[in-house]
Amino acid sequence: MREVAVVGVGQTPVAEHWGLSLRHLALQAVEAAVADASVPQIDALYVGNMLSGELAGQEHLGALIADFSGMRGIEAFKVEAACGSGAAALRLGYLAVGSGAADTVLVVGVEKMTDALAEDTTAALALAADGEYEAAQGVSFVALNALLMRRYMHEFGYSQADFAGFAVNAHRNGANNPQAMFQFALKADRFAAARMICDPINLLDSSPVCDGAAAVVLAPAEQAGDLSAAPVRIAASAVGTDALAVHDRSDPMVLAGAAIATRRAYDQAGVGPDEIDLFELHGAFGIMAALSLEAAGFAEKGKGVRLAMEGEIGIEGRVPIATMGGLKARGHPVGATGVYQAVEVVQQLRQLAGANQVADARVGMAQNIGGSGATAFTHIFVRMDE
Amino acid sequence: MREVAVVGVGQTPVAEHWGLSLRHLALQAVEAAVADASVPQIDALYVGNMLSGELAGQEHLGALIADFSGMRGIEAFKVEAACGSGAAALRLGYLAVGSGAADTVLVVGVEKMTDALAEDTTAALALAADGEYEAAQGVSFVALNALLMRRYMHEFGYSQADFAGFAVNAHRNGANNPQAMFQFALKADRFAAARMICDPINLLDSSPVCDGAAAVVLAPAEQAGDLSAAPVRIAASAVGTDALAVHDRSDPMVLAGAAIATRRAYDQAGVGPDEIDLFELHGAFGIMAALSLEAAGFAEKGKGVRLAMEGEIGIEGRVPIATMGGLKARGHPVGATGVYQAVEVVQQLRQLAGANQVADARVGMAQNIGGSGATAFTHIFVRMDE
Repeated sequence: MREVAVVGVGQTPVAEHWGLSLRHLALQAVEAAVADASVPQIDALYVGNMLSGELAGQEHLGALIADFSGMRGIEAFKVEAACGSGAAALRLGYLAVGSGAADTVLVVGVEKMTDALAEDTTAALALAADGEYEAAQGVSFVALNALLMRRYMHEFGYSQADFAGFAVNAHRNGANNPQAMFQFALKADRFAAARMICDPINLLDSSPVCDGAAAVVLAPAEQAGDLSAAPVRIAASAVGTDALAVHDRSDPMVLAGAAIATRRAYDQAGVGPDEIDLFELHGAFGIMAALSLEAAGFAEKGKGVRLAMEGEIGIEGRVPIATMGGLKARGHPVGATGVYQAVEVVQQLRQLAGANQVADARVGMAQNIGGSGATAFTHIFVRMDE
Repeated sequence: MREVAVVGVGQTPVAEHWGLSLRHLALQAVEAAVADASVPQIDALYVGNMLSGELAGQEHLGALIADFSGMRGIEAFKVEAACGSGAAALRLGYLAVGSGAADTVLVVGVEKMTDALAEDTTAALALAADGEYEAAQGVSFVALNALLMRRYMHEFGYSQADFAGFAVNAHRNGANNPQAMFQFALKADRFAAARMICDPINLLDSSPVCDGAAAVVLAPAEQAGDLSAAPVRIAASAVGTDALAVHDRSDPMVLAGAAIATRRAYDQAGVGPDEIDLFELHGAFGIMAALSLEAAGFAEKGKGVRLAMEGEIGIEGRVPIATMGGLKARGHPVGATGVYQAVEVVQQLRQLAGANQVADARVGMAQNIGGSGATAFTHIFVRMDE
């Protein structure tokens, strides 16, 4: 298949956007991405979204956003893979350009979560879990992650405080990102004092409910130099799955789907963990960050949290994560997150990440996870002057 | 891109499946399709579904169905384009195989609509329309179609009874399809006596709320001869969109998105309406069938309904439609319909349509529409011995 590149990126600030509906959020990201690229037209538009039907009273986002963005007539539809929906749309765009079916594709991730009652949002997020064997028993999505974290602490001998480093790192980076929901630093003592949401997950270990949209423009890599001053090649696009229900997994302490997706991505790109300059992982909770680091080969089983404890996840660390704030501080508008990750990796590879710039970043990886690990999308991006 | 073929098909009967949950429905279709193909493994599974979150308490169907079908680990996610979701999944599968990213792909359309209160189903279907400018005003999905039909009758001078032929034809064919929801014939006088649902649409002009699942296995056309005794090539896969809200369209009496998708498909396949031996169109209501026939070039504007009045849509007519019962009699489990259409076209091209066989069918077209026309997917299938 043809090689594919990102030739434009755009995003809205992540926030509680009381004044913007879902279509307006998407439009802002689309306009920014299209303005960032020099493409004559868009052939197709793919939307990543998880909960617009449940929380925003709207399905059928493809046609809606295409029309509202002034692109009536073009190919458009939506993809969904729970919190991994954004990267699913990126995957689809990659296939469309790679196949030759489209030359320029717009990938939009959008989610509007705040125009709903909190209990409805909690119920909607639980649709990512197994409806008949998890959610129907009253287990919320946070609760599933709390069970994983409790097991991790028990099995490998950690305390809840050992996870503080993920939130502290995310907030340190979010403080420098004007698009982030939380632009303030966080100290470990404040983490320790935060009220418990779902023991052992506290408020400051949790990504927020929020609204946002992000977009990227894709084009064939061989034309990318004409379409962008700083194109970024997608060196790998891979997907892996696991059992939807946590209790069905062969080992709940291993994100097998993420491990599959990462291995496939490393194979496609011809790199390994040592070549990854930054890793935008799916840190919806600290436990997901720890397990993701392990699945991606940056730590052995049971040792992912040590990278946070030992300061290895900072901008100058061995494996910088959440470099623009991540899901915790930039925010986690669920179906949009995978596209935000792609935008941020591109910013890093373009050396436009400001105070959060990873020095001479050449290769960046993004991993977007659906549910508590049942679906994982791994994309590897490489600077095109390499 | 590589040419793509269908090498296996499967379906469940369309019915009110009180004893089967969504995952069990999908599994039945998957097992049938895999048994029909001779493929060593499946590389990816794409699910078409519209309303599982709203009506079945479950998002994240990709990982769920992959795991429940014994394919844990493979690439899997869901696509949505309202009632066009099934064909959207087919489109995605076509891109994945065409690009070379996957060799064998399973496309599953599934919908379970009956485990919900009728008013919830009505509200959920309205998510296909513009939430802020149509549904929020109280316009249901049937009402939008009723407005289109009323306008069509007014503008072109037809009566409600003139649409009877679509339902009569669908039921005549459904009577011979063991998978159809309604396996009985229907006469025009019974149509005329049916109670009005949403004037001028009556009960027998409406496709039913129902459950079902269908699946196809895709593979590269050049390998298809080894994988199936009767492979069918996908000669075209195309998508077009229009304004989501009917009032935003330049002419509500033209399905512009369907016209775009059909024109693109004809161009790709190098055929025109005269070469199409059968046309599985999106006859959710008679008015949609009439407008689809016009958009696809089988009738001039305002004359689509004449094809039904004049008997041209029967198995032996000029343009056979709904050959296995269509949305009206086979049934319309919304997110599954586009895959049922593909299965039925393949049955026809394999000459396995029994009493409903279109003589020597060589080229079949399927068109799946989202909403009241905002998204349209057109696929053209050709027998591989041609």
